[in-house]
Amino acid sequence: MEGGALRSFVNGSACQRLSVEDRGLHYGDGLFETMLLEGGRPQLLSLHLDRLHQGCSRLGLPMPVELPEEIQRLLGEAGQPSRGVLKLILSRGLAPRGYRLPELTRPTRVLLLYSAPDYPAEHRRQGIKVRLCRTRLSGTDPLASLKHLNRLTQVLARAEWSDPAIGEGLMLDEDRRVVSGTMSNVFLAEQGRLCTPGLERQGVRGVMRRHLLEQVIPELGLEAVTEEVDVPRLLAAEEVFLSNTLIGIWPVTALVGQGRWPVGDITRSLQRHLSRQLV
Amino acid sequence: MEGGALRSFVNGSACQRLSVEDRGLHYGDGLFETMLLEGGRPQLLSLHLDRLHQGCSRLGLPMPVELPEEIQRLLGEAGQPSRGVLKLILSRGLAPRGYRLPELTRPTRVLLLYSAPDYPAEHRRQGIKVRLCRTRLSGTDPLASLKHLNRLTQVLARAEWSDPAIGEGLMLDEDRRVVSGTMSNVFLAEQGRLCTPGLERQGVRGVMRRHLLEQVIPELGLEAVTEEVDVPRLLAAEEVFLSNTLIGIWPVTALVGQGRWPVGDITRSLQRHLSRQLV
Repeated sequence: MEGGALRSFVNGSACQRLSVEDRGLHYGDGLFETMLLEGGRPQLLSLHLDRLHQGCSRLGLPMPVELPEEIQRLLGEAGQPSRGVLKLILSRGLAPRGYRLPELTRPTRVLLLYSAPDYPAEHRRQGIKVRLCRTRLSGTDPLASLKHLNRLTQVLARAEWSDPAIGEGLMLDEDRRVVSGTMSNVFLAEQGRLCTPGLERQGVRGVMRRHLLEQVIPELGLEAVTEEVDVPRLLAAEEVFLSNTLIGIWPVTALVGQGRWPVGDITRSLQRHLSRQLV
Repeated sequence: MEGGALRSFVNGSACQRLSVEDRGLHYGDGLFETMLLEGGRPQLLSLHLDRLHQGCSRLGLPMPVELPEEIQRLLGEAGQPSRGVLKLILSRGLAPRGYRLPELTRPTRVLLLYSAPDYPAEHRRQGIKVRLCRTRLSGTDPLASLKHLNRLTQVLARAEWSDPAIGEGLMLDEDRRVVSGTMSNVFLAEQGRLCTPGLERQGVRGVMRRHLLEQVIPELGLEAVTEEVDVPRLLAAEEVFLSNTLIGIWPVTALVGQGRWPVGDITRSLQRHLSRQLV
């Protein structure tokens, strides 16, 4: 395929094209999920489907019950790859011109299979440097926490740097509170306790963030809170790491020009726990 | 075509589909323009192309120089319709997965021809009722003034009502200042002078708004300012109207439950001037 995907389905059939009238294209009127395929299985699938379900409720879209079967069929047709990335896009589908919702919604389901992510292995082992993005996440976003298709702000933030030595950019809100990375959530370790921004007004509640908060961190006997994090608090943390479904956990070792952190014991134990679970 | 378009081009050729890997679908990474076709010609074409050019500069997209020729060719193939709507979508095109910009950008140009808008004629003649949307435009949007493809906030605002007696919804920012309608700009007449929100932090600078501010209003010997407008100021105005490329000018006669306005002389003279120019 032209952009790099290995295979794709549209509404359950092998297809590489969709209508130029789709509301996903016109308005970003839809949702997406990006899943890690490992050991031949989409990891944390039930959490991805749960977030999709919440997004469907918010946008007034019917939850597509066909997805687990279609994912299996796509993987079967692709020769049961062991590793890769599965991306799902669910849009409100075709409709007449205009923002108004169609009387009858026929959502479009797009499934894309990509090869495994090619992030440098040292990102996970040695950690990454991050920078602060100039592009801010503004105000109280009515779409906060949804994994929706309106991602131009993240695109502009990611376009701020091309230096491969910078692994991710952190995004602030208008009051200079840390919200997240462009594609990841942020965690701090402070005196043995973990903290991650609450994301009430901005950002995406990552599936890996939820898995860490609800399962991994309690299983390790650790405690976590969701609180506001400003830059001074970030700089004062003992350990900092980023999470998402594809990267797992990347330790953060430096905020360019502002501070450094070691790759600490808590980050390492979370990484170990995660890698044991996911294989 | 399935959603209601009469004809479409993708990158200059008749085509109804585009790649499921297009960044327009994945991220809303692109721009659009909606043009009124009247007397066989796209109205205010140079203003639309100018706004597109500004958007391209902001997003780092090359301005597609083929557009005027492609529009003429599409209209020719469609039998030179006298009236209709031309929608242009320009996306960043295909790219590998992820927010990062591709090394080589090959934008996708989509042109869609629709039949003329079927808004009730009395909207223009007798005016409309509007409501205040609960969905707010938040903070200082880094994408303010761009006509980009991230329109889910407008979709959610438009989904708040289905009563056909309500012609448009007004959107407020977090400080309850009036920004715009879901698909239109707002003007007030106050003691013979016109006022419209400045849109520094939010909203879209409509092509019709610009045409009114830069040409129609001065030609009528009137004055206009761009200033902050809160709801009390709106309610105190002598006349209120909405503008966009397709509707031209709709007088506003009521804000449901809060206030009424007559269809005033200034609104009428702007409408007359506009209809003389555009035919």
